[in-house]
Amino acid sequence: MDDVVKELADALPDGVVTTDEAALEKYRHDWTHDAGAGMPLAAVRAESAEHVQETVRWAARHGIGVVPRGAGTSLSGGSMAVDGCVTLSLERMNRVEIDTDSRVAVVEPGAFNVEVKRAAAAEGLWYPPDPSSYEICSIGGNVATNAGGLCCVKYGVTTDYVLGMDVVLADGTLVTLGGKRIKDVAGLSLLKLFVGSEGTLGIVTKAVLRLVPAQQPSSTVVATFPTVADAAAAVVELGRSVRASMVELMDRASINAVEDFRPMGLDRDAGALLLVQSDAPGATRADEVAAIVAACELHGAKEVLDTDDPEDGEMFVQARRIHFTALEPRGSVLPEDVGVPVPQLPELLAEIEAIGQRHDVEIPVVAHAGDGNTHPAIVYDAGDADSERRARLAFDDVMHAAIRLGGTITGEHGVGRMKKGCLEDQVGPDVMALNRKVKAALDPQGILNPGSFV
Amino acid sequence: MDDVVKELADALPDGVVTTDEAALEKYRHDWTHDAGAGMPLAAVRAESAEHVQETVRWAARHGIGVVPRGAGTSLSGGSMAVDGCVTLSLERMNRVEIDTDSRVAVVEPGAFNVEVKRAAAAEGLWYPPDPSSYEICSIGGNVATNAGGLCCVKYGVTTDYVLGMDVVLADGTLVTLGGKRIKDVAGLSLLKLFVGSEGTLGIVTKAVLRLVPAQQPSSTVVATFPTVADAAAAVVELGRSVRASMVELMDRASINAVEDFRPMGLDRDAGALLLVQSDAPGATRADEVAAIVAACELHGAKEVLDTDDPEDGEMFVQARRIHFTALEPRGSVLPEDVGVPVPQLPELLAEIEAIGQRHDVEIPVVAHAGDGNTHPAIVYDAGDADSERRARLAFDDVMHAAIRLGGTITGEHGVGRMKKGCLEDQVGPDVMALNRKVKAALDPQGILNPGSFV
Repeated sequence: MDDVVKELADALPDGVVTTDEAALEKYRHDWTHDAGAGMPLAAVRAESAEHVQETVRWAARHGIGVVPRGAGTSLSGGSMAVDGCVTLSLERMNRVEIDTDSRVAVVEPGAFNVEVKRAAAAEGLWYPPDPSSYEICSIGGNVATNAGGLCCVKYGVTTDYVLGMDVVLADGTLVTLGGKRIKDVAGLSLLKLFVGSEGTLGIVTKAVLRLVPAQQPSSTVVATFPTVADAAAAVVELGRSVRASMVELMDRASINAVEDFRPMGLDRDAGALLLVQSDAPGATRADEVAAIVAACELHGAKEVLDTDDPEDGEMFVQARRIHFTALEPRGSVLPEDVGVPVPQLPELLAEIEAIGQRHDVEIPVVAHAGDGNTHPAIVYDAGDADSERRARLAFDDVMHAAIRLGGTITGEHGVGRMKKGCLEDQVGPDVMALNRKVKAALDPQGILNPGSFV
Repeated sequence: MDDVVKELADALPDGVVTTDEAALEKYRHDWTHDAGAGMPLAAVRAESAEHVQETVRWAARHGIGVVPRGAGTSLSGGSMAVDGCVTLSLERMNRVEIDTDSRVAVVEPGAFNVEVKRAAAAEGLWYPPDPSSYEICSIGGNVATNAGGLCCVKYGVTTDYVLGMDVVLADGTLVTLGGKRIKDVAGLSLLKLFVGSEGTLGIVTKAVLRLVPAQQPSSTVVATFPTVADAAAAVVELGRSVRASMVELMDRASINAVEDFRPMGLDRDAGALLLVQSDAPGATRADEVAAIVAACELHGAKEVLDTDDPEDGEMFVQARRIHFTALEPRGSVLPEDVGVPVPQLPELLAEIEAIGQRHDVEIPVVAHAGDGNTHPAIVYDAGDADSERRARLAFDDVMHAAIRLGGTITGEHGVGRMKKGCLEDQVGPDVMALNRKVKAALDPQGILNPGSFV
């Protein structure tokens, strides 16, 4: 342990700072598994906001970068280490407290999304945002990326539920933004600025999250289509009249990857599968299901089945959720997260298919189709330099296809380190300059999540 | 017209710039009717984003302040002129375009909220945010203040519906943030930062607003209570199980002011009236109505009536909406907009009553009770210096009461010029410094809405 790190270790309780090689090996990486991950000087496992402040003050004094980290499930390299930084893990700060009268959860950043859901459910309440990884991703990461999920087509994304937060700024100051009040427009919307800032402006040490009454049971429609274009057309159609609580799409490659991994009897010949749920209460659920079925049939569905049994429905949702895991045996994956306006979904999906063919890589696609947000997964052989080269070309091409269609390079994963090269292509030089101005104003030394998008 | 103003007038089409005294008299004021309103050098009635850019570039060159203005219905002095500024009116930029496939409205800032609602309704779609003034307030103002309204207890506020915008920055650059895509986390959440920035960071020249399928018909519950505390307790209670689409409260003074103005048979002896709607579909509406009625009865309601007739319900909503107009015959009004966490609502209402007594001023209160957002209206005699002095003391006391209860000085009107003296008391010096850093980064000359909160 060098003198500079020792200074920090001495200022914090035993066991908070580690320079153990095996530990650092774990903290270097996130789920991006990028070979370019750097090696941190040390990892800090903060147990309180004071530890975070102490660490940031120390980092500011020495001009050392701080990479904040929740559960390390970033798919964009957002919590990947850079050489010479410290990784600041929030995993030990994981308290969850429910205030039933105010209907909020007060949550530390290391708590998992599922823990907030469970604590809320115990009081008959619900925290809606549900990234596919909700059982293993942290609230800190959710807030940092403004995470979405499956139900956000009806219930919105993380930012819609953040009422307040404590943030440690780049000079170690702790500020409280918002609180348990539902509406508050006093001053600039700094709270909303910090949501989605990916640890580049400050480090969240507490979040006040809005809860709502428990969700009603859902009915599920599963429809297969000859082509993804047909399925996408059905999505546009049903969006006109139904506020579905889930509108997920799997393309043929994704269906087959899941069937290979865990056979569930999905139709391997279908061009695409739509998984749509309605949680409308009472008899209206049947009306919504009928409207969803009609939209699918109108756009050439091969087979449509619907069920009111939540367990049957959940089985299909599981098939969708394991998509990412199901790809593991197939090779390494560059996970995409591009989105377009919903009417451009068919065109984006066609482009992705063409890109896969052009670069000779497999690109199974799942999509939060109701939001136009797709997750093409570019599969490659990490041991084969040419395969990786072709995958990276495809990765860039998919982002540029989304940009050309009026879309975004990231709908919910964040830019992180994997996509920073394409951010300016999307937003243009003027908005890029705005990003930099805000960053420079709040973190003039550039110590917060260095090497990330801004 | 002096040389500097002439330079601008020459650069823009005839009739865009005016220095006509009668016109300026109109543009000086907003609905705050504050005697301290300044006199602008000129008013610019922009017809395009280019006119806005031209004006801002000219202002930057000469170091002249620009006060942007939509319909001038600000209740916080947000669009009030300051001496030597130009007022930049967006009233002529009022196009509304509906894209049904993307389910968005593309709207210029001068369009009224009601015009967006109407255009959306013509396509079977709905733009939810509904400030009480929705028939006469502009979308530009709604975006600038992150306006709320009656249905936002269930459907959220303006920021939840802004998918994109064009903004003219302090140097005249026009940037496009977001777009028709529903989810987008690429880069900092600048879009959300500009929403609610009250014209201090840039001038919105176009907004892309999310639309949803048309609202279902509503059932209405009207309940009277012996005290506001009972009514507030019923609000907390029903929030546990019901996602009501409207939860409005009127206190005795407000009921009587409305009855004086337009007799509707409201119970003048009630301590408070709750007006609650459910727009749940199908048979669930009856379940929600039953739960709302039960919550009211549990907390001592004197009388509870419910109706499924939308016209009957709308009559009560009108009674609530005319509250502000009904106060006109009673004198001048300092309109408050303080909010607290919902469980603190009874305490806030009790405090407001005590403040009225202490300063001997009438303070009728209506509240978006389900959000904890109240509108105490401090009535005074503008011709009587002592009355005005007491009103201003009450105005400050109400804000500080909200702050003490963990609340905010403004839930939806904005800080503007009327409340800027109290902003730091709420957010503290560190958050105030953060506001100033962001402002300085984006508008270093301080020409955008000078004299406003930051």
